[in-house]
Order: sequence, then structure tokens, then C-alpha cells
Amino acid sequence: MKFGGTSVADLDRIRNVAARVKRAVDAGNQVAVVVSAMAGATNQLVAWCQSLSPLHDAREYDTVVSTGEQVTTGLLAIALMDLGVEARSWQGWQIPIRTDDAHGKARILQIDGDELIHRMDKGHVPVVAGFQGMAPNRRITTLGRGGSDTSAVALAAALKAERCDIYTDVDGVYTTDPRIVPQARKLAKIAYEEMLELASVGAKVLQTRSVELAMNERVRVRVLSSFKDAEPNDDEGTLVVDEDEIVEKENVAGIAYSRDESKITVRHVPDRPGIAATIFGVLADQNVNVDMIVQNVSADGSTDMTFTVGKADLPRARQALQHIKSAINYAELLEDPNVAKISVVGVGMRSHAGVANTMFRALADKAINIQVISTSEIKVSVLIAAEYTELAVRALHTAYGLDAA
Amino acid sequence: MKFGGTSVADLDRIRNVAARVKRAVDAGNQVAVVVSAMAGATNQLVAWCQSLSPLHDAREYDTVVSTGEQVTTGLLAIALMDLGVEARSWQGWQIPIRTDDAHGKARILQIDGDELIHRMDKGHVPVVAGFQGMAPNRRITTLGRGGSDTSAVALAAALKAERCDIYTDVDGVYTTDPRIVPQARKLAKIAYEEMLELASVGAKVLQTRSVELAMNERVRVRVLSSFKDAEPNDDEGTLVVDEDEIVEKENVAGIAYSRDESKITVRHVPDRPGIAATIFGVLADQNVNVDMIVQNVSADGSTDMTFTVGKADLPRARQALQHIKSAINYAELLEDPNVAKISVVGVGMRSHAGVANTMFRALADKAINIQVISTSEIKVSVLIAAEYTELAVRALHTAYGLDAA
Repeated sequence: MKFGGTSVADLDRIRNVAARVKRAVDAGNQVAVVVSAMAGATNQLVAWCQSLSPLHDAREYDTVVSTGEQVTTGLLAIALMDLGVEARSWQGWQIPIRTDDAHGKARILQIDGDELIHRMDKGHVPVVAGFQGMAPNRRITTLGRGGSDTSAVALAAALKAERCDIYTDVDGVYTTDPRIVPQARKLAKIAYEEMLELASVGAKVLQTRSVELAMNERVRVRVLSSFKDAEPNDDEGTLVVDEDEIVEKENVAGIAYSRDESKITVRHVPDRPGIAATIFGVLADQNVNVDMIVQNVSADGSTDMTFTVGKADLPRARQALQHIKSAINYAELLEDPNVAKISVVGVGMRSHAGVANTMFRALADKAINIQVISTSEIKVSVLIAAEYTELAVRALHTAYGLDAA
Repeated sequence: MKFGGTSVADLDRIRNVAARVKRAVDAGNQVAVVVSAMAGATNQLVAWCQSLSPLHDAREYDTVVSTGEQVTTGLLAIALMDLGVEARSWQGWQIPIRTDDAHGKARILQIDGDELIHRMDKGHVPVVAGFQGMAPNRRITTLGRGGSDTSAVALAAALKAERCDIYTDVDGVYTTDPRIVPQARKLAKIAYEEMLELASVGAKVLQTRSVELAMNERVRVRVLSSFKDAEPNDDEGTLVVDEDEIVEKENVAGIAYSRDESKITVRHVPDRPGIAATIFGVLADQNVNVDMIVQNVSADGSTDMTFTVGKADLPRARQALQHIKSAINYAELLEDPNVAKISVVGVGMRSHAGVANTMFRALADKAINIQVISTSEIKVSVLIAAEYTELAVRALHTAYGLDAA
């Protein structure tokens, strides 16, 4: 059972979490718990580090911010013991949760679950600090924002858990954002691959890396709300599972959107081999993540190269491209931050033609211009003007028959 | 260099501490730093634990409250690096600072200083979390309130430091509380034994255990203020050292007072062997610390037994004594919480007679009645009515010639 920051935001909620864990134990389950920092705590700690030095050392940053989770583990263990449940807190270094030394965005390398399994066999509940681990040199690491989901999935794999329940402030994964489409439906099941596409295109339910890990380790993940008082039954939340477990595959499982990208067009690039490699090479050197790419048909020996980058990366991308202006001799650089990426996602697409066409027709019917298209095996994404985001999402939700009855 | 909670209370003060450490490094010193939690942080964490469960597990309490120091180590390391000083944070478990498993009031067993010495030789500044350590089973321990002083002295001993500078919110040890006696003088030097008596009778400058440790390990401790901007010169603060280092020994180094005791009188105790053992035995069984004891001269085969206990222990003491009323057959139990203990302390007393008499005469001149007297080799303490506390301290300060010119 993993509880995020809003689920442990204050002492009352921590008591609620303890009661929920106790009910799961009383129902005969062996339970390990992973917790985040109390909502707001991490932001405060991050702000202190940044205020002292914008270029603060990542190892010290990890030392400071990892205390948020440590506090929650101790408090929840106290609340559990107060209810008569045998519990104890575990920090990343105590288990240990071994990570690499990429401080601030470390990757879990290995968790030795034997000691915890041994204690759980005796009825104890380990309360494990999410988000943190220990580098090879025994310094504290953190996994990056949202990393507690990854901690939970990795621990579930190490403990060979039947399931990893992620309690959060939403009650499952929806066909799209219910704030935009009131008719959005909660999905009972979703395939790892679909969840991965939805997570990465903007449905902020699970951290992308946690879904990758769940897919690789075949951990069954359930997303559900910590704000419902009743015990979850089997229909509760959304189960993220292997595609094979999903009997009725929809062509499209969900519609996602992201306003976090900016479009860049490099105009009149000479149309010769190696140019794309040069452009995307300098961007990669600057750690700029490029998402959608489209190259126009060449005319008069030159072409336009259009692509999207994260909004935060735009200044670095611009600088890198200006540096190579004379080298590759392009005409000009156009930027447009007012774009949105709309994606339709579904493993059913693999066996059904016409999914992309339905999208294009639905958008055309609303007179929404498509600027860039990119596709993968289970996803079609388009870039449109940001102002049409809601209109497009609603039109697509209806077009794919996702609206609740 | 050890900095307490008020010295690292916010980011500005942490920056000031960093600047002070840098000046010490620039002056050619090898420096290790010990820090407390930011003022208020520990209280918040303690309140959370108590609110969740008044009888919370001490191991989880330690897990929660030790985060306060962890945060400060990371922030100070960041501030130091921002000034170009090579620094890194060290938690108790990383060094490790090995303690016993008496959670909440653990004792330091051993610190391996080799790794830190090695790094300090290369110019690095270790920033060590005070107050915390690691139990044999690798769980986090804390040393009790004020434990960071003990951490600093223990680390100074492990590093074979020339001196342990304790930066605090006062600028040294005074002949008495300057809030009561404006003419109180700062002592340039004080002997370990004197400091120990002053600390334990109410001068809250250093934690008692830290002074014991300094005495045993012969660590030279300097108490000085972190709120003065100028660099401390050699006269700054108060040096706590071996008696032999003090050339001009005063008869009396200082006057201390404590209002934290209550007087108990057991009336008409049968005057026979074993009675005292019975009374103080049951009190010890209840963990009640007895301080001053006086037994009146016996008359009519019975005697009165008077002693003092900490105010917080009074209910437990009363209960224990009521339990044995029939067994030892005393007449009645009298309690008086409105008492104060006044102590004059000085190693010079060993070789000078008349010190106690000066005290008695000075108090008599002010018509202050002495209720109980107790003496040690370097201390005379009297119990008086609490309302005379200030009057008595002032009179004694003058009588022993301690007033500043």
C-alpha cells in the first residue's frame, strides 16, 4: 500500500491511513506500506536549498529533502502501534534500497526484501520511506519528484507482492481528464503500455518510471483513492496490468493532453544528409528532450524542420540552435509556446485500422488545424493550437465512444 | 565548532554560520562542525509524535525528531559550498556515531574519526548532525534534549581536536544569571568540576553530560556567542578546562539557583536502622531522583526526614511514600513546592575554610531562613523559600566579591 503526500498531509490523515492499513491486516493480508512526505513538506525543503544556493550540491539536496519521507514513516509507525498493529519505519539506507549515484534522480538498482519478508511473516508491517535510497558510497539519494510510486513498485517486486495498491487523491485512471470531460469514465483495467503513454503525455496519476518498472517486473498495480472511507472492493480503482489480462480491448483506452511543450521550426535548412543529426545532436548535448519531429517535403533544395521540446527546455534549445546557425546555414528560427499535444492511446489500435483517421476527421469537423502528427504502435498524437485543447479532447472522447452513458 | 538551534534558526543565520566557519578555515584551522536542528523544528516534531500517541515508541520518536538535525547539516553544507568551502553533511549512521539502544536518551559508545580526519587533512569541512547516533541494530537514536553539546564534545575527542567551540545564544559562563544580577561577570575560565555543578544546578549553558564527557576526555571547551559578528579573540567566551589551567582560583566561581525542586518531609519516622534505606529504596524504584537530604536529630525515638525531588517527580514520590506509610509507620507527609536551591560553587573551596560560613552570614543578614543544607567538596547548597531567590543570589554575589567593578 502506497500513500502519497495528500494522503498523509496531516495527523488526522495519517491516523486514517493507519486505520486503513489495520483493516487490510485484519482482513488477513501481509502488508508493507510506502509513504511520501506530508504534502508541502518537500516543497519547503526544496525552497530552502534553492534559496541558499541556486546551484546547490545534489547530494546535500537529497540529504535535506529525504527527511520529509523519514518523518512520515515514523509518524505512521507510531499511529499503527497506537492501533495495536506491530509496525516499524524503514529508511532507504536501512533496508537498503540500493540506487545509483545520480543524486536527485537516482535509479533503484536492487532491494533486498528478505528481512522485510521475514518480519511480515511474523505479522509486522514495515513502513518504508518512499522517494529515497542509498548510493554505493552510502550517501542518501532521491528518485526525483513522484519517485515514491517507483519505490512502491520496486518494493512490491522485491517482496513478490500480489499487488501494489497506490492510494492517491484520484480514484483511478479515467478515459480522459474529468475536469474537461464530465462524461469521462473510470477504467477498470488498463494495460502497462497504455498507462505508460498516458502518464508520459500528461495524465498525472503515476510517475512514468514506476509504470515502466511495473511492466518490466510484472507488478500488478492498482490506483485508488485514499479519501474514500469504505474498504475498496475488487472493482475499486483502476488495475494496471498486462495486456493479456484485459479481455475487452477498446481501440482507444483514453485521451491525454499536454500543454507543456513548445514548437520550434528551423526554416530553410539545406536538404542534405547529416543536417538532422547536427540539429538534434546539439540539442541532445544540452540535455534537451525532443518529442515530436516532422520534416517537410523538400523544395528548392531546402526544407523546414519542426519539432517540440518541453517548455522549460525552450531557452536552452534556442541558445543551442543559435550557436549552429552559421554552421548549418538555416534562414530563421520560429518558436511557438502556445501549442498542445493531444494523444489517443490504446493497445487495441494494433489490430484496428482507421483509428488515426477517426481522430483527423473529428478534429476537422471542429475546424481544428493539425500542426504536427506523430504515431507509435499504440498512440496517435497531434499538435494543435493550445486554445483548442478542451474542444479537441471533448470531440475525441465522443468520437471514440468513450462518453459514459 | 558547534552551533545550537537559535544559531541556525533560519537561512540568514545559516549563512552567517557558514561565513564564520569559512573565516576559521581561512585562518588556517581544520574545522569540523556539529549542528542542532533549526530552532522550533524539534518541538514541532516532538509535538506530532505526542499528538499521535502519548505513549509513542521511542525508536520511532528518534526516527522522526532526528530529521531536524539532518536538514541543518544539508543546508549548512550547501551554504558552505556556496562560499567555496569544501563541505559535506554526515549523519550519525554514516560516520557512524555508535550509541547504546536507550532510545530518546542514548549514550555515545564510540566514534570512529579516521575517515573525517582523513578528509579534514585535505581541507574538507565535515558538517555533522548533532543529537543523533546509531544503535547496534542500525536504528537511529537520539541523545536527549541538548544532546548536540555532547555530540560536539565526543566528536572533538574522536578527532583529537585542540578545542571544542560551542556557539550559543549567550557569550559565556557568568558568575550568576545576569538577569538577576546585572553586575554578574563573564568568567574567562572555569574548571570542569565547577561547570558540572553549575550546569546541574540550573545554569543552562551546557548539557551536563557534555561537561562530564569533556572532563573525562580532557576536551577543552569554549562557550561563546554566535551573535557577535566579529571574530572571537582568545579572551572571547568562557573556556571550560582542567583545574590546573586556572592560575587564579577564586574561592567561589559562581552562584547558581534552581526552582525546579520540591521539598518533602516525612514526619515522625521511627528512628531505627533500615528506615532510610526503605524510603529512598522505593523512590529509586520509581525512578525518582532525590537531591538534598537531611535527617533531624532524633527525639522521643522518632525523627523527621526531609529531602528534595524534581518538581515533575513529586506526584510519583508522593504515591510511592503513601504506599509504605503503614510499613514504616510515619505520622504524616509534608510537601512544599515553593522552594529554591541556591548553590555557591568553586574549586578554590577545597583549600579555603569559611566559604560556607560566608554564605550563612550573608543570608542571615537578609533574614532569609535556611531550610536544608548540603555540601560537596566544591559546592555549598541551601534550600530557601522560593520568594527569596533573587534577593539571596544578589546578596551572595556581593558577599563573595563577584560583582563587576
